[in-house]
Amino acid sequence: MSPAAGDRPLAVVLLSGGMDSCVAAAIARQTCEPAFLHVSYGQRTEARELQAFHAIADHYGVARRLVARLDHLKAIGGSALTDETRDAVHARRADSTIPDTYVPLRNTHLLAMAASWAEVLGARPIYIGAVEEDSSGYPDCREEYYREFNRLLGVAARPESRLHVETPLIHLSKAQIVREGLRLEAPLHLTWSCYTGQEVACGACESCRLRLRGFRDAGARDPIPYRP
Amino acid sequence: MSPAAGDRPLAVVLLSGGMDSCVAAAIARQTCEPAFLHVSYGQRTEARELQAFHAIADHYGVARRLVARLDHLKAIGGSALTDETRDAVHARRADSTIPDTYVPLRNTHLLAMAASWAEVLGARPIYIGAVEEDSSGYPDCREEYYREFNRLLGVAARPESRLHVETPLIHLSKAQIVREGLRLEAPLHLTWSCYTGQEVACGACESCRLRLRGFRDAGARDPIPYRP
Repeated sequence: MSPAAGDRPLAVVLLSGGMDSCVAAAIARQTCEPAFLHVSYGQRTEARELQAFHAIADHYGVARRLVARLDHLKAIGGSALTDETRDAVHARRADSTIPDTYVPLRNTHLLAMAASWAEVLGARPIYIGAVEEDSSGYPDCREEYYREFNRLLGVAARPESRLHVETPLIHLSKAQIVREGLRLEAPLHLTWSCYTGQEVACGACESCRLRLRGFRDAGARDPIPYRP
Repeated sequence: MSPAAGDRPLAVVLLSGGMDSCVAAAIARQTCEPAFLHVSYGQRTEARELQAFHAIADHYGVARRLVARLDHLKAIGGSALTDETRDAVHARRADSTIPDTYVPLRNTHLLAMAASWAEVLGARPIYIGAVEEDSSGYPDCREEYYREFNRLLGVAARPESRLHVETPLIHLSKAQIVREGLRLEAPLHLTWSCYTGQEVACGACESCRLRLRGFRDAGARDPIPYRP
């Protein structure tokens, strides 16, 4: 592993391949040398997301990449994202504020992995493109969750590691994320957000609808193709 | 998955196959119907630990078992426990208070998995046999780490899940753990603690030495065989 280029500190960036994490990566690159981490956890759109991950990493010339598998999340189940017998398009149940696409403790798994890698690399910041205000209501996308996770990092690792999570998008709307991505020339055309894993995005699932509304509210055109 | 036997609540128990987790399981069984979780993370003694896990689960007649793999921890490295080029027997470095067998963020990965499974099973307590006072100095074996993790669980999962971690051994010495195991008739003869993965325990690694001292201080004989 070569040292960071120039004097820029290393940062681990969780990059799913979606729009939000791509914009978080663009923000991290302003001050840090990024290392990209992708986690496959048996989600339906796994192969398509991984393709987007590598396309974005190639675009930015990032060689430090780690693709990790969390197969037990699919084995444990409990989510429409990892259980193909559940409906990921119409996933919000009337009796819950949390959609059925919620994967139990998912971001805790992702951050634990990012923190392990960061500690070994010697990176301190961990970037994640979590969005609270315009997200789907997942408990682990709220600012208070990240505040607690940072408290945990203060006692969970070697004290000299000084790991901390950065959430640059946490209070942005999808429209603001689109504008920030365009301003930073993030490769939004390479990203993938759809939950249903088609060759073209469905335009109907919650993730597609949030994304399309973001582009519309930003007055911009989404560069990826959608099913007519 | 059948409901809990009788009226006892379900609990997820992290069971490595070592003595401490076996005693934690014995304590959990006093009030709960346990579900046993074993995590393989590329540690050297993986196969032997898994054998101990199933032997203990058979002994207690526990059918709810989950064996999960965290292969990325070995890929990430940074520990003598998962890296066979490092010396696990003489693992404490002069320049650090934390031994070289520390696996970066390991217990955060284990607890995240236990919490995901607990949420899907409908179990609230998660038992882990972590020991602070007579342990090896791992940061994620201290009481303050579990206090922070429980704070995190309060915001990381569905609010109705009410997950919480129980650490019944956290302030016990190894001798007290041995006595508690003998009192509860825990199957200590089925457990495995050695870091070096032989057919008989080495008696020389840090884990063996802590265990042997615990039995000696408790005035008891360790029922497993050691290399002469």
